[in-house]
Amino acid sequence: MTHIDINKPILDKNDRLAQSNKELLHKKGIFTLDLMASPGAGKTTAILATIEALKDRYNIAVIEGDIASNVDALKIKAAGIPAVQINTGGICHLESDMIRSALDQLPLDNLDFIIIENVGNLVCTTEFYLGEDAKVMILSVPEGDDKPHKYPGIFQTSKAVLVSKTDTLPVFDFDMDDFNKTVGSLNPKAPIFPVSAKSGEGMSDWTEWLVAQIEAKRLS
Amino acid sequence: MTHIDINKPILDKNDRLAQSNKELLHKKGIFTLDLMASPGAGKTTAILATIEALKDRYNIAVIEGDIASNVDALKIKAAGIPAVQINTGGICHLESDMIRSALDQLPLDNLDFIIIENVGNLVCTTEFYLGEDAKVMILSVPEGDDKPHKYPGIFQTSKAVLVSKTDTLPVFDFDMDDFNKTVGSLNPKAPIFPVSAKSGEGMSDWTEWLVAQIEAKRLS
Repeated sequence: MTHIDINKPILDKNDRLAQSNKELLHKKGIFTLDLMASPGAGKTTAILATIEALKDRYNIAVIEGDIASNVDALKIKAAGIPAVQINTGGICHLESDMIRSALDQLPLDNLDFIIIENVGNLVCTTEFYLGEDAKVMILSVPEGDDKPHKYPGIFQTSKAVLVSKTDTLPVFDFDMDDFNKTVGSLNPKAPIFPVSAKSGEGMSDWTEWLVAQIEAKRLS
Repeated sequence: MTHIDINKPILDKNDRLAQSNKELLHKKGIFTLDLMASPGAGKTTAILATIEALKDRYNIAVIEGDIASNVDALKIKAAGIPAVQINTGGICHLESDMIRSALDQLPLDNLDFIIIENVGNLVCTTEFYLGEDAKVMILSVPEGDDKPHKYPGIFQTSKAVLVSKTDTLPVFDFDMDDFNKTVGSLNPKAPIFPVSAKSGEGMSDWTEWLVAQIEAKRLS
């Protein structure tokens, strides 16, 4: 379709800048995660729980992407962590030039780990490489177990999949076995972490995996 | 930003086709609704409940938009209603040419009301006029009451706002008063309908409003 051809120059430019971001982050020894999910799936909550678990071990910063508002960056700053808010205007995903502007505002020499919270969107966010080491997605239980069928791309692009709000499993018809099977067929290598920020369930499995990724990069 | 300028030809082409869709639908006396929401907010469930309430009064058809799969169209067809599934590939919203292809497959002479279920997305869906009479959005309680701050565009574009899954209000921290106030400041004319497909709460207020819209078009 026309859309894809017309967008190609944007993607080319984006990829060049992403490569430059990647080199900068590598030089500074910073591991970078691009976190993707639907609106309201619990990205900021998961980030706050991840910060709480890892802040004694690593110096962390967060880049927040939203169409409008600085609600999320304020929450991160309240946790004592440097945060930059990007407002994309009407654009439904982050692009490399936005990330570069945010990196210019962060104390890169003192950081080990940057979490990028992408705009709430299961589609466009997957198409833009930002220079990150890994894309990871969250699907929340209330969204339903059929989402891998409808949005296969994001499940294929993600290095790990968090299933959030597992404390609400009794309220929703979410078939975890079926979900695991579908995700497994789309992306056999991606671990799936059921987590609940309310009960704390599964958070340690997730953060252990994350630490392994960060340490693997340090050794590389 | 460059993105917007480069997309302009697509939007122009889309608007021309939307106008043509609008004229066709007007000629056939069909009221058309474009339903937008995040993935998993309950669009298909709301459509099924709306069909159940209005199927004796109107001849209804549904156009389903998804990146992939025909899960939703199968659910609608199981309810005995004509349904066309559009798979957009990687595109995060429906466009007018896709709607036209779907209209070509529907028995327009026998229809009163078409519901378009757009791709799960709070951003791009708002930017494309498809020829519909009204855009309406659903926000589900689990997504959180802060969404109007983060995605103001969709709340401003919608002629009505459904708040779904209200049966889960006891499980989530969702401040309905605060939500109503924020939506009211963005779009004072849009009615807000709290609904629960599980308990049936609010569905009659929603369908009464919808009937008033359909009848108003018939009289125009």
